[in-house]
Amino acid sequence: MNKNRLEAFSDGVLAIIITIMVLELKVPHDASYAALLPLWPVFLCYVLSFLYIGIYWNNHHHLLHAARRVTGAALWANLHLLFWLSLLPFVTGWMGENHFAPLPTALYGVVLLMAGAAYWILVHVLIAGEGTDSLLARAIGRDRKGTASVIIYAIAIPVAVIVQTPPFRNAVAWGHCVGG
Amino acid sequence: MNKNRLEAFSDGVLAIIITIMVLELKVPHDASYAALLPLWPVFLCYVLSFLYIGIYWNNHHHLLHAARRVTGAALWANLHLLFWLSLLPFVTGWMGENHFAPLPTALYGVVLLMAGAAYWILVHVLIAGEGTDSLLARAIGRDRKGTASVIIYAIAIPVAVIVQTPPFRNAVAWGHCVGG
Amino acid sequence: MNKNRLEAFSDGVLAIIITIMVLELKVPHDASYAALLPLWPVFLCYVLSFLYIGIYWNNHHHLLHAARRVTGAALWANLHLLFWLSLLPFVTGWMGENHFAPLPTALYGVVLLMAGAAYWILVHVLIAGEGTDSLLARAIGRDRKGTASVIIYAIAIPVAVIVQTPPFRNAVAWGHCVGG
Amino acid sequence: MNKNRLEAFSDGVLAIIITIMVLELKVPHDASYAALLPLWPVFLCYVLSFLYIGIYWNNHHHLLHAARRVTGAALWANLHLLFWLSLLPFVTGWMGENHFAPLPTALYGVVLLMAGAAYWILVHVLIAGEGTDSLLARAIGRDRKGTASVIIYAIAIPVAVIVQTPPFRNAVAWGHCVGG
Repeated sequence: MNKNRLEAFSDGVLAIIITIMVLELKVPHDASYAALLPLWPVFLCYVLSFLYIGIYWNNHHHLLHAARRVTGAALWANLHLLFWLSLLPFVTGWMGENHFAPLPTALYGVVLLMAGAAYWILVHVLIAGEGTDSLLARAIGRDRKGTASVIIYAIAIPVAVIVQTPPFRNAVAWGHCVGG
Repeated sequence: MNKNRLEAFSDGVLAIIITIMVLELKVPHDASYAALLPLWPVFLCYVLSFLYIGIYWNNHHHLLHAARRVTGAALWANLHLLFWLSLLPFVTGWMGENHFAPLPTALYGVVLLMAGAAYWILVHVLIAGEGTDSLLARAIGRDRKGTASVIIYAIAIPVAVIVQTPPFRNAVAWGHCVGG
Repeated sequence: MNKNRLEAFSDGVLAIIITIMVLELKVPHDASYAALLPLWPVFLCYVLSFLYIGIYWNNHHHLLHAARRVTGAALWANLHLLFWLSLLPFVTGWMGENHFAPLPTALYGVVLLMAGAAYWILVHVLIAGEGTDSLLARAIGRDRKGTASVIIYAIAIPVAVIVQTPPFRNAVAWGHCVGG
Repeated sequence: MNKNRLEAFSDGVLAIIITIMVLELKVPHDASYAALLPLWPVFLCYVLSFLYIGIYWNNHHHLLHAARRVTGAALWANLHLLFWLSLLPFVTGWMGENHFAPLPTALYGVVLLMAGAAYWILVHVLIAGEGTDSLLARAIGRDRKGTASVIIYAIAIPVAVIVQTPPFRNAVAWGHCVGG
């Protein structure tokens, strides 16, 4: 099985996800600053989600570049990842429209957490198909910076979800967005 | 005629179909569980249709991987398949919004049945273009698991359509979704 | 300049056009036949436009398969074709929602006419870039069936536009759709 | 790192941007000229933005054709360019719906300016990755017409933004659109 079509399909889905999120920025009827201003949280969330999809596309690119064989299990692990990422436009819109209210922000965190888990599964399904001494396994093993960022990420998301109680949330939502 | 562009076009259409279905998950205005809860049937249907498109993409990938020549007839058989699959976002949204009411669920079944028939036509058009002793014909012939799943599928859909009378429908709709 | 990226970009645009047209099929809120029935003209127009895009994709595929060099002028001739085709979802939705009323049907015809003209320009720009004794020029010249269908097409569209006066329109709209 | 997937992803995003802009042309409910007429500024803006995306795609095509190596920094410079272009459907819709009112037109100019800057960054990141005596650096250097148009462009946009005060704006908006 060649990996080109898997890449092409993933590129297509990611390109659509990254682009349809902008449809949540509903065109205001008025031409005034007053009409534009309420859109800033939606815009901020759009930037944040654009960055996340960009990071995933980037990592996906490197991951499949290193992989040599794509098994049937990897096709499904990849679809599983795309499924969680496809929910990002919905949770982005919900979080933006509600100015980082606890429930939408928590759901946004859950979707990111599931996407992170799906990516982890994809990595390990690909390695399982190639053997632990493959180029891919060694590339992942060597990639200290990648591993470190995955660990920080894995800690940050549950924390963000847990602290989404009203006293904490304004500060966290802001930090979550700016530091995304 | 090379098959790469047929694959690329099909990938594009399938990637868009799988992604625009999420637009049926309308962003609620409220940030409460009460606003999110009514979306569960739409979400369930989204998951179901995502799986179906995933299965079709997967099978399409294997089918064209085995094919060597793409005739003009195959281009049209492929467009015919994409046509029925392109109706999936509409029937998914209708079924989800109406909580698996008989008519939308029946129409969902009809669209799946027609897509299944279109896939069967595509397979046979491709085999007709290559001869019965081609790699493709042998790959399809050997593929017992695939054939078995197609037969089960072909039986399951008309049954699902027929039993869509009120007394049966709640149980069936549930089984149809969970066992999809 | 390689033609692969031109093909990939055109495939992407055509795949999106063919798929977003289905968004004009607005999901009805009711689960009854009465709610579904008013959608039939929109559905009929969707089928018609799907066929047209399919024909253009098919012809575009054959045309670029025969071409060897893509000039800067051809890039713009191709974008010009995609521009007119990108208006198809709009005119399809308008014609469908207004049950083949004269003005929307005439505008639909104008968009098809302009797309046909744009295709003709693209063919001649490509031939101009390769010389009249090139493979492409000979392929176009030999393609009697293609030429005949283009001529019939070129006659049919202005006729359809002209006869869009109330006394003629019901019969013509029907024939236009069914015989599309 | 191969550049094919970068091209494919960019093609996907640009194809979607160029196509979803047409969704801002909302289908009118009436079949009359009176219902169609108010759409002309939206249509004019659609044509303008279609041209801009076409120019970017064209330039992007030539740029990456000349590039041989794509670094990690170039992936992000490319995503940065796509980010600004992805805002074009929003500002196009806003400017069109408000008949070239000062604020939407200024925002449209800002998005184009940022996209122009992002393109400039991408060019220099690519050259930095290849060396100043590379094929790319020489192609960019030789490309007098390209450089001249970039300079004119860089002057025109801030001017358009600055003169967006009511006394100037009708004339400028018209010239901006027609001369786009």
